[in-house]
Amino acid sequence: MNLKCMTIALAAIISCGFCQAQINSGGVKEDFKASSLNQPGQEFPQVNSQGYARFRIKAPQADSIRVSLGLGGQGGTRLVKNADGYFTGTTSGAMDEGFHYYHLTIDGGVFNDPGALNYFGSARWESGIEIPAKDQDFYALKNVPHGHVQQILFPSKSTHTSRRAYVYTPPGYGKGNKRYPVLYLQHGWGEDETAWSNQGRANLIMDNLIAEGKSKAFIIVMTYGMTNEIKWGGIKDFKIETFQTVLTEELIPYIDASFSTLTDRNNRAMAGLSMGGMETHSITLNKSELFGYYALLSGGTFNAAELKDKPKPKLIFISCGSREHPEGVKNAVAALKDADYNAVAYISEHTGHEFQTWRRSLRELGPLLFN
Amino acid sequence: MNLKCMTIALAAIISCGFCQAQINSGGVKEDFKASSLNQPGQEFPQVNSQGYARFRIKAPQADSIRVSLGLGGQGGTRLVKNADGYFTGTTSGAMDEGFHYYHLTIDGGVFNDPGALNYFGSARWESGIEIPAKDQDFYALKNVPHGHVQQILFPSKSTHTSRRAYVYTPPGYGKGNKRYPVLYLQHGWGEDETAWSNQGRANLIMDNLIAEGKSKAFIIVMTYGMTNEIKWGGIKDFKIETFQTVLTEELIPYIDASFSTLTDRNNRAMAGLSMGGMETHSITLNKSELFGYYALLSGGTFNAAELKDKPKPKLIFISCGSREHPEGVKNAVAALKDADYNAVAYISEHTGHEFQTWRRSLRELGPLLFN
Repeated sequence: MNLKCMTIALAAIISCGFCQAQINSGGVKEDFKASSLNQPGQEFPQVNSQGYARFRIKAPQADSIRVSLGLGGQGGTRLVKNADGYFTGTTSGAMDEGFHYYHLTIDGGVFNDPGALNYFGSARWESGIEIPAKDQDFYALKNVPHGHVQQILFPSKSTHTSRRAYVYTPPGYGKGNKRYPVLYLQHGWGEDETAWSNQGRANLIMDNLIAEGKSKAFIIVMTYGMTNEIKWGGIKDFKIETFQTVLTEELIPYIDASFSTLTDRNNRAMAGLSMGGMETHSITLNKSELFGYYALLSGGTFNAAELKDKPKPKLIFISCGSREHPEGVKNAVAALKDADYNAVAYISEHTGHEFQTWRRSLRELGPLLFN
Repeated sequence: MNLKCMTIALAAIISCGFCQAQINSGGVKEDFKASSLNQPGQEFPQVNSQGYARFRIKAPQADSIRVSLGLGGQGGTRLVKNADGYFTGTTSGAMDEGFHYYHLTIDGGVFNDPGALNYFGSARWESGIEIPAKDQDFYALKNVPHGHVQQILFPSKSTHTSRRAYVYTPPGYGKGNKRYPVLYLQHGWGEDETAWSNQGRANLIMDNLIAEGKSKAFIIVMTYGMTNEIKWGGIKDFKIETFQTVLTEELIPYIDASFSTLTDRNNRAMAGLSMGGMETHSITLNKSELFGYYALLSGGTFNAAELKDKPKPKLIFISCGSREHPEGVKNAVAALKDADYNAVAYISEHTGHEFQTWRRSLRELGPLLFN
């Protein structure tokens, strides 16, 4: 993926992170319920069966509250103050299904919604809301055996610190002497190593796939990929070397020493979303001997020219949302197939550069890994 | 511990959670630095070497911002609006060392400080600030072998759901066939299963104790202890049976089936802070056959009468901050010793009903367990 693609992707995060599916010109159904991502006991924000979101914020002496979530180009949703001291408002249209980040602008300052849980995105902890999706079953918490998600602190000489990662171990891990393949899975710009399990629900997606017999059981490792300073536009200055050193010379050896892993390239995959796709693209090309499976989720494409003369990947998976650049993904995969690569394209319908695209991408990717 | 004690403890959480060590009538040293618990890249809130905290919040059109943190009885710290649209202010005295929860009241509504990380307390995600402590080394992130903290989802028939817990496994866990003792460690009212590793730093405290050869390596299990509805004053209606069933009939069997544990009572301990102490008190008395070590941290006391005719504990540890009820703790421990129990009292100097007391209590408790 070149810099231009990433700039477009980044612009998409900034300007279109809250794109909507449809403007409902008819009535708004009054079947609003508390979002599933609310803090304990909080009634707001709410969502209705059409995908509208409704907000209610107490601030009796405030003049103005705006929610960043709303129809693209309208600057979010302006709340109206009521006599009881609460500001309320509803998005002017249905939101895309799945997870959205948002925040409040209160009298000119940026704050989170006290009703909602927080998720790390845009290089800060943002409020999160979940628009129930028709296919939400695949990432639901079900009565199936559950894997564990563990925080590890691994030594990093190159950055002079202990660095944090999260490791998903599948159900039954540790009960015998079985060794497992490993997927290294990266977040996007402005997110961190908490994103894939918190907003991405990677652990529940895998628990469910494994319970249904659709995927092999494997370990997932998620670490922080923004080794440079966090600032808007910083992606232009992103250099892969620092992170590549952390990942390939420090994290992978630590994982292989600490967990029951299979350590050959045919049992190691790398995937990433958005900026994490850029990282995956660079690192799998630079270190082809380490990885056998590559996946870019809304994070650019591969071409045959850059892959030749390197150890051949067992799979190249490329995905994005239908509101992104699906033709680019399909064309790239078609060209890779023509060049005799095992390439798979996946387009998430009616979603953009957001986590519902990436949850679905993981659901599609999981069954293809390590076969 | 009786209900009156818990009511006092709860009142302490509500009204005195932000008690201070001293009012500095002299000058405030201008050596403020960003709090170690700030969000990435955020300069505020800040703390100085005397323990003062300084806040800076952007909200150009707001009328009033108050920070809940400040000298007791003064209702927190009122910020002053500057010409640049930022509200600023400094606590009128030095804060106690260690971790404090706080929030902002902006024009009559409650919000978090966008500069600070969030911690679950008061039944909501609150802002957190860290006043550097003279003894902060014992919970610092050091270049020592680190244990892992893993999220597990365990099946709970009695509550019809999968429940979450966090499990600390010590450095080296899983590399051989070694089996480990287990400490069940409970949070306080309004907190949850994230508290002990996030604000409590239990994992780093144990990593450091183990690296220094001061403590045996053991597993710590932390789960959610508020099985009733979350509301202020709800503690009066707290019944132990629901949680006791989850802990002793569901969680312990899951842990013993999923981890390399030692399963006799001499290798199982229970401890808790504040409300978690109440839970520990009730459950260790009701299920003495399961636990060999009991610890109450700012969570009441034991007396010999309630212990007799039950399997004798190997250790009873009781602690609190010097600003709480240290004489009550010392007297209770003296009486237990007179009755021939192995009882230990610990008083954390210059701290109240806050996490610095409990971090220190864990540092003192760890070396006494499973010997």
